[in-house]
Amino acid sequence: MSNAVQTISVDLGDRSYPIHIGDGLLGQRLRQLVGEFRSKQVAIFTNPTVSSLYLESTLAGLSDFNVDVFTMPDGEAHKNLDTYNDAMDFLMDHRHNRTTCLVALGGGVVGDLTGFVAATFQRGVDFVQIPTTLLAQVDSSVGGKTAVNHASGKNMIGAFYQPQSVVIDISVLRTLPDREYAAGLAEIVKYGVIYDAEFFAWLEANSEAISARETQALIHVIRRSCEIKAEVVAQDEREAGLRAILNFGHTFGHAIENLSGYGTWLHGEAVSVGMVMAAQFSERLNRLPQGGASRIAELLECMDLPVTLTGDVERQAMLTAMGMDKKTVDGRVRFVVANAIGQVDLVADYSQAALDETLAAFCSR
Amino acid sequence: MSNAVQTISVDLGDRSYPIHIGDGLLGQRLRQLVGEFRSKQVAIFTNPTVSSLYLESTLAGLSDFNVDVFTMPDGEAHKNLDTYNDAMDFLMDHRHNRTTCLVALGGGVVGDLTGFVAATFQRGVDFVQIPTTLLAQVDSSVGGKTAVNHASGKNMIGAFYQPQSVVIDISVLRTLPDREYAAGLAEIVKYGVIYDAEFFAWLEANSEAISARETQALIHVIRRSCEIKAEVVAQDEREAGLRAILNFGHTFGHAIENLSGYGTWLHGEAVSVGMVMAAQFSERLNRLPQGGASRIAELLECMDLPVTLTGDVERQAMLTAMGMDKKTVDGRVRFVVANAIGQVDLVADYSQAALDETLAAFCSR
Repeated sequence: MSNAVQTISVDLGDRSYPIHIGDGLLGQRLRQLVGEFRSKQVAIFTNPTVSSLYLESTLAGLSDFNVDVFTMPDGEAHKNLDTYNDAMDFLMDHRHNRTTCLVALGGGVVGDLTGFVAATFQRGVDFVQIPTTLLAQVDSSVGGKTAVNHASGKNMIGAFYQPQSVVIDISVLRTLPDREYAAGLAEIVKYGVIYDAEFFAWLEANSEAISARETQALIHVIRRSCEIKAEVVAQDEREAGLRAILNFGHTFGHAIENLSGYGTWLHGEAVSVGMVMAAQFSERLNRLPQGGASRIAELLECMDLPVTLTGDVERQAMLTAMGMDKKTVDGRVRFVVANAIGQVDLVADYSQAALDETLAAFCSR
Repeated sequence: MSNAVQTISVDLGDRSYPIHIGDGLLGQRLRQLVGEFRSKQVAIFTNPTVSSLYLESTLAGLSDFNVDVFTMPDGEAHKNLDTYNDAMDFLMDHRHNRTTCLVALGGGVVGDLTGFVAATFQRGVDFVQIPTTLLAQVDSSVGGKTAVNHASGKNMIGAFYQPQSVVIDISVLRTLPDREYAAGLAEIVKYGVIYDAEFFAWLEANSEAISARETQALIHVIRRSCEIKAEVVAQDEREAGLRAILNFGHTFGHAIENLSGYGTWLHGEAVSVGMVMAAQFSERLNRLPQGGASRIAELLECMDLPVTLTGDVERQAMLTAMGMDKKTVDGRVRFVVANAIGQVDLVADYSQAALDETLAAFCSR
């Protein structure tokens, strides 16, 4: 176990915060990393699965605080206003005030809900994120997107709200199921494609170490992923422009998730196929040089990620799911396309034939 | 009717916004004042009372937009998560997206709820406030406090979120019931006491014109009140320090509201008595020179506001309601006290005897 802690900064003016990355950061080391809170009040938000594995070591690191633990049910289905209301009741019942600090101990669902509660409890309290999945570590720990779902759509209710700090302990990844681990790697590959050809090449050269969850490899890929996302977010905190490049592969990916019913594909798996589709689309638009799409697909396959659609997915259904049906008022859906590995653009003006051909290559009919 | 529009600016960096004040600003003039929105989507949030009086003229001013109208039930009791959820359903059902603009047409309840929906629908959309009570015009239209109530407390769930603009049409005050009008004046007197002795003297000299709701007097007091609040908020957007002075009279006032059951006293009425209590407390602390408290009380009486407690209010109950019971962890409640008319301080270190004497002078036992 390496004891070094690497710290990067997400630069957002007076909303800047540090991300600490290391191996074995829970327990006593947690106390130093989170520093002082505004009072002794702390509420840890977690779920039963994570709680059984990591609550004890988290509590050990916060032993000089008065800690209450809110355990929410596991799964995306509970990231809704009902759980939000329960969380508010919990904080009120336990007499938390404006000086409290919420600690999100869990994956994306716990992080998103905790962040939204922190953004809105008494008009905003401090919160700290301890993401326990690879996806949450490289994606939702940077950017301040907090949300709950609404019956009519994911993440429809939320706020942009930044944490005080993020503590990424890579040791928690050793208990992560293989599928979830791979799903996190999809977003890591994405950062290479959209921003950093050198990082992409590093992933290719070190895919075995990554798949073996080797400590130094993990620290490097998480650190670089967070850095890239932090750079993008720092330039566009509220998603007015540049931040859209983070959606590479996601327009296709969301449609896949949507058509299969949420839960069939993990988000990262759908994004993996979506990135291959986006890359092939980019080649058909004569932007990405030939061979780029297969290079991306090969890396994803090395990481045990799917690169083709399985099951019966129709072209027309994909178009509809991407919002390209007749009901769409504004007409065209914008796509993030690659000009090279490491460089992408957001385009609204593209050949419909290239899109149709791409869909035909993946869909059953 | 005067056609001049006065515009002041609330300076909050990239969250700055204008407040337009004038007589007869709904209808065609509204269109110019609000300027361009991000799209043609608009949702007006209002209640049945306000809607019957001012929806038509508001719609006339927004005739080139696609406007949906969300009518929420009247009253503080409905400023809760249920109405919030209904509002979210409404926006989704009517296919509003991130480019929509919400228009709050109503008093504080409508404004607070609309603002919180705007802060959190798809992580934040634009909103415009058209406050239709005097209290909302001089208080909630400046400062970005949005909220809904929770069973265990008022405004426990919310966000700091600034509107795109505020349009204050004083002509709407002509339909406001006398009690509600007077309740708004209490906050106006407060601005004089906490920040501007000259303004306080102007209120004394012009109390008849104010009570008669004369146009020029109204425009002046609303403008100056908004300016003062804007100056305070600009220095302390998130209520870390200075902004607390806006609570002059409110610690006592909230306790009065709380003990009487919400609804018995209007907020402004409770604050009126609370300010007289705070002023007498300030005299007993040898801060406010003798005579200051009665000068404040006289002005409030001129404006048909209560200056004494009625009914059976016990001293011990007031202390408990102010959070000074044994369960309070941090011990002392801080008070805003006056050093002079026009200058106040927030104090945590004060004579308990002076507080007890003040309560004894107002309470039944």
